[in-house]
Amino acid sequence: MRKIGVEDLDDIAMGAALLGSGGGGDPYIGKLMAQGAIEDCGPVTMISPDAVPDDALLMPIAMMGAPTVLSEKAINGLEYRELYDMVKRMYNKEIYAVMPIEAGGVNSMLPFVAAARLGLNLVDVDGMGRAFPELQMVTFTIGGVNATPMALADEKGNSLMIKTFNNKWTENIARSICMTCGGSVSIALYIMDGKTMKNFGIRDIVSRSQRLGEAIRGAKNSADKTPEEFFLEAAKGFKLFSGKISDVQREVKGGFNFGKVLLEGIGSDKGKGAAVEFQNENLIATVEGKIKATTPDLICLVDTETFVPVPTDAVKYGKRVMVVGLECYPLWREPAGLELVGPRYFGYDTDYVPVEVLNKGRAK
Amino acid sequence: MRKIGVEDLDDIAMGAALLGSGGGGDPYIGKLMAQGAIEDCGPVTMISPDAVPDDALLMPIAMMGAPTVLSEKAINGLEYRELYDMVKRMYNKEIYAVMPIEAGGVNSMLPFVAAARLGLNLVDVDGMGRAFPELQMVTFTIGGVNATPMALADEKGNSLMIKTFNNKWTENIARSICMTCGGSVSIALYIMDGKTMKNFGIRDIVSRSQRLGEAIRGAKNSADKTPEEFFLEAAKGFKLFSGKISDVQREVKGGFNFGKVLLEGIGSDKGKGAAVEFQNENLIATVEGKIKATTPDLICLVDTETFVPVPTDAVKYGKRVMVVGLECYPLWREPAGLELVGPRYFGYDTDYVPVEVLNKGRAK
Repeated sequence: MRKIGVEDLDDIAMGAALLGSGGGGDPYIGKLMAQGAIEDCGPVTMISPDAVPDDALLMPIAMMGAPTVLSEKAINGLEYRELYDMVKRMYNKEIYAVMPIEAGGVNSMLPFVAAARLGLNLVDVDGMGRAFPELQMVTFTIGGVNATPMALADEKGNSLMIKTFNNKWTENIARSICMTCGGSVSIALYIMDGKTMKNFGIRDIVSRSQRLGEAIRGAKNSADKTPEEFFLEAAKGFKLFSGKISDVQREVKGGFNFGKVLLEGIGSDKGKGAAVEFQNENLIATVEGKIKATTPDLICLVDTETFVPVPTDAVKYGKRVMVVGLECYPLWREPAGLELVGPRYFGYDTDYVPVEVLNKGRAK
Repeated sequence: MRKIGVEDLDDIAMGAALLGSGGGGDPYIGKLMAQGAIEDCGPVTMISPDAVPDDALLMPIAMMGAPTVLSEKAINGLEYRELYDMVKRMYNKEIYAVMPIEAGGVNSMLPFVAAARLGLNLVDVDGMGRAFPELQMVTFTIGGVNATPMALADEKGNSLMIKTFNNKWTENIARSICMTCGGSVSIALYIMDGKTMKNFGIRDIVSRSQRLGEAIRGAKNSADKTPEEFFLEAAKGFKLFSGKISDVQREVKGGFNFGKVLLEGIGSDKGKGAAVEFQNENLIATVEGKIKATTPDLICLVDTETFVPVPTDAVKYGKRVMVVGLECYPLWREPAGLELVGPRYFGYDTDYVPVEVLNKGRAK
């Protein structure tokens, strides 16, 4: 158990931007909101998964929507009280703590806003270990947990309690509501007990985000390594490519940001070309047409000098980025995991090969 | 208070098809379901609005969706129990009776299915006095009643409790869910007390449907009038045009059936042309380019021989129909009513003129 104050947010948000794998929304806005909530209500107590009683009720909190919308249409702050009231009434039980469901991007910060404003603890756990674009893409789905009854609220005062018979239907229905409500909504879903969270959750992910953020911040002051070496080692990342962004293709479709980033090699990759495709999050990275990493492994674009993550909604012509591959949570590599979030789910006609196999001998 | 048995359903459904003004869905399927429910569970007790205590909780029941979908995708029968449970839990009160919210089409029959299966009484009242395409288009909106908390269930096992801050948002959100769920869903909305129902409801509308159905059935046996005279007098209808359908333009857009029916005159209208435009329901009728009736007055196409109503999803080339105009419920003619359902709401650049003014001296 430890207190998370305003001074911790920068590193957590920075690390979460990396785990966002290009998606998850810009954590900057979420960070400002978490700062405001902690300044108003005091630090948030973060507890270890093991400290949660088996029968305690947990409420994961997230924002749903396309990243480009999230950065322009904020919450009004009353949504969390509304979600809390709906969940409490539906489950007829006290809520023990909130938790993130997604480690990456804005959804790393908003659970702190909810925890601070509701006076609840936050559990150091999530259900992705990164960011993914759809609601059913959590380890809890593999564990047979129903995403519903789920609460949804927008900033205008609309709210819904949703019950579906499987988690893909939760995604379909909530997505259509999200689009009708202007492209982003606040949600509480996968309401679960402590035992379920301990069985299927990804532990200590907020702490990991914070350490990643520290590493990005500290890279340039490393004593005995180049900043790049220091960053890659701390992130346990594979350097897939370094290049200048030569083209960005974008499309907002069905409430998602789709697109492709083209890169011209620099440094040791000079003369080569690479491409990264995304649906909110980066899904596949190729160099000279050869696959170097695919979902569910994390594909992250970071600034070549500062290692600050560059989300898909901020990539632009001329920017110099390093493409980094990170190993995903092991459960995602099981057949049930790949069915949910593997390359074939996203329409790529290729089997999943782990990033460490595709990049044997590369810097890490 | 009287019992509605299987033998009453034909006339009620026939009259409701007329009040459907071309929309509201085909009551035939609803009638079969009501027959089945009454055969299984016994006749439904229909009570007068005045017999409902002021503080009794009423649950209007309807199906939402495009008529063309309603005729192909039925309910599974469990939706009403689900809606009942959701409403009871939300309001924490016993439900006194069900009621229709729409008099026209399939929604005249489905409340009987719910009443029979749930063992509840049905109130002889509705909120339209006809059919309209959108959820906010009820007299209760004029009375300031919130459509929500509203319950929604589909035949696959998805269900939602929806709360919105105004009734147009209810329509927007429920419509997007309806489309995601395949184009039709079962709903319970405008949950209200007896006092509100008595203040703003349209009384005795089921009884009126039954009398209209009797008149259609009895027209050909009239002793002292032509069948057409008998029908028009019983329906209090204005004969706007008689013609053969020469073209039908259709489009399903945003979950609605849009279209236009073109007519070539027959009999006394020979040599003239007419047109009827619809969005689920018929909205405007013109003869030789001159407006003869607009929403909210009822525009009904009926067979020239049998006077059986022809819904918008059944109009086809070559069919001979009479276009009939019926006066709408007086509240729709007030400024607040015309704002909700007048011609300008549907995009027609014309003021509303009552059908009896536009057709002075015509047969009625």
